[in-house]
Amino acid sequence: MRIVVDAFGGDNAPLEVLRGCAMAVSEYQDIEITLTGDEEKIRSCAAQNQIPLEKITVRHAPTVIPVEEEPSEIRRKYADCSMAVGLGLLASGEGDAFVSAGSTGALVMGASLFVKRIKGIKRAAIGTIMPTMQGLYLLLDGGANAECRPEMLLQFAIMGSAYMESVQGVKNPKVGLVNIGAEPNKGTDLQYEAYHLLQDAPINFTGNVEPRDIPAGVCDVVVADGFTGNVVLKLTEGVALSFAGEIKRMFYKNLKTKIAGLLMSSEVAAFKGKMDYAEHGGAPLMGIAKPVIKAHGSSNAKAFKNAIRQARDYAQNDVIHKIERSVAQIRQREKQSV
Amino acid sequence: MRIVVDAFGGDNAPLEVLRGCAMAVSEYQDIEITLTGDEEKIRSCAAQNQIPLEKITVRHAPTVIPVEEEPSEIRRKYADCSMAVGLGLLASGEGDAFVSAGSTGALVMGASLFVKRIKGIKRAAIGTIMPTMQGLYLLLDGGANAECRPEMLLQFAIMGSAYMESVQGVKNPKVGLVNIGAEPNKGTDLQYEAYHLLQDAPINFTGNVEPRDIPAGVCDVVVADGFTGNVVLKLTEGVALSFAGEIKRMFYKNLKTKIAGLLMSSEVAAFKGKMDYAEHGGAPLMGIAKPVIKAHGSSNAKAFKNAIRQARDYAQNDVIHKIERSVAQIRQREKQSV
Repeated sequence: MRIVVDAFGGDNAPLEVLRGCAMAVSEYQDIEITLTGDEEKIRSCAAQNQIPLEKITVRHAPTVIPVEEEPSEIRRKYADCSMAVGLGLLASGEGDAFVSAGSTGALVMGASLFVKRIKGIKRAAIGTIMPTMQGLYLLLDGGANAECRPEMLLQFAIMGSAYMESVQGVKNPKVGLVNIGAEPNKGTDLQYEAYHLLQDAPINFTGNVEPRDIPAGVCDVVVADGFTGNVVLKLTEGVALSFAGEIKRMFYKNLKTKIAGLLMSSEVAAFKGKMDYAEHGGAPLMGIAKPVIKAHGSSNAKAFKNAIRQARDYAQNDVIHKIERSVAQIRQREKQSV
Repeated sequence: MRIVVDAFGGDNAPLEVLRGCAMAVSEYQDIEITLTGDEEKIRSCAAQNQIPLEKITVRHAPTVIPVEEEPSEIRRKYADCSMAVGLGLLASGEGDAFVSAGSTGALVMGASLFVKRIKGIKRAAIGTIMPTMQGLYLLLDGGANAECRPEMLLQFAIMGSAYMESVQGVKNPKVGLVNIGAEPNKGTDLQYEAYHLLQDAPINFTGNVEPRDIPAGVCDVVVADGFTGNVVLKLTEGVALSFAGEIKRMFYKNLKTKIAGLLMSSEVAAFKGKMDYAEHGGAPLMGIAKPVIKAHGSSNAKAFKNAIRQARDYAQNDVIHKIERSVAQIRQREKQSV
């Protein structure tokens, strides 16, 4: 299995990317890596930091698309960037999966353009892995499509369900639709119509999920338009950060609380571990015809290693064909009912 | 000042309502209360629990509108319910403000029907007081209007700004628009258009606010359509509950952590206090021509007492006239620019 990795994506590139790749090839015997990016810089960074490049090849790409750049520039001004070259290798079959911590917009657009979408899929979505106290859930769309039609939400549900079943090994994953009430008639027209489509879909649809219940992990797959999904993702992070900061301040308040902090150190460490996105890898782009993982912009070496493992699991399992079959099945049924 | 209170709203009615009213009249010398609801039940509950009814009068209302009832039934099947009678007293001038912990939908509809909206205001909104580690912010719309037009968001901003300035005493309150990015072109058409309206409004608009930053209290007024606002409100609560539950479990794990819990007890109590909605009263309905407060459904006596104080402050300050003037000013400007 060959994983293509964008060496120049994210805030800590290329050093943490290289470290993560070295960790991955040493830990997972079944993978080889192709790094894309400025070859000279990659080799000098590896040499300076004594990172072995065994089982890692480099494909030169002279530029990097900045996160603030218009995503569409990936096929014009930045057609030779590390991300575009990586997606090209994936498209041509020179790699089995692609990992990048670069611009999300450019990655979604580049993947849709160069690698193409799964047949019948209207729009690619970002599947964000969200940690909870009990485990994790997949939230999609995490923000690729601010405005959605009901059929898109149906496809997100099918794709998320396939991913959680095949890659995460969750049997018959519970799928919930983010809404402001449990009843089918709640929310806007989008939720109302999506609810009815989801009810008839070949998935384990458990109905509307109220945001109050999402963090408790009541669903394995949480479906929303990209605007709402992005709000859920960022607000979860914001409240968690605000709580974590306050708890830290509490423990540092005085001698008594500092002693309490020492007594609690292993519990606090375990708690941090649960909330650590780096443990879970990155966000699978769902709906692209080959596996693409968006790693977090602030990924460290461990996060890159886990994103590479996740890319391997995504490629090894039959997710994409499963999605293809489900979509074809729904289209067939629609045709028959017309 | 006379505050009208729905004796049969909320999960703990009428006992906690009565207790809260008795606390309020004893603590705040300047108020009297009219309770609405089944007079016999109110008097027997007060007698059984030795709650004094000094400075409290009762106005009989034989029924209670259930939370699961269609809100519009407040003017048909439940025209004689405790909420409708209370709103009637407010409308006729027999009270200066109204507090209810009953059905939110019925309260929004009933207030719009019986008390009417402020001249020029298109839709009433729920202004939810959200506690943060540093203080609080007002979120609106908290869920009255799942679908909104840009002009509605502009009015929410003006109303929220007036409330925070006049009732909470925040000078020049910072107003943010919930969006999935800081740039003006982010989000859907709704956010894009609302951004430009807010920029020209007579408020301290600080731009888009990303959900990650909301819990840190970067804005005093957080504006969103009712769907997004309700997601923000319920998800904040959900993440907080999930964190609080995990922290509790951590402290109860073993002897060492229990000792740590004891050492931290005053900090944990202070933390709980900050997060306690009961301290902040209820949600002001914004856009209604007279002050209406929606108390939380699970309000206890303290929460009712604080909601009554908040109703008094809402009535004492010039919020409603201030909103009226701002709306008139904007309409004037619009006319001139045509």
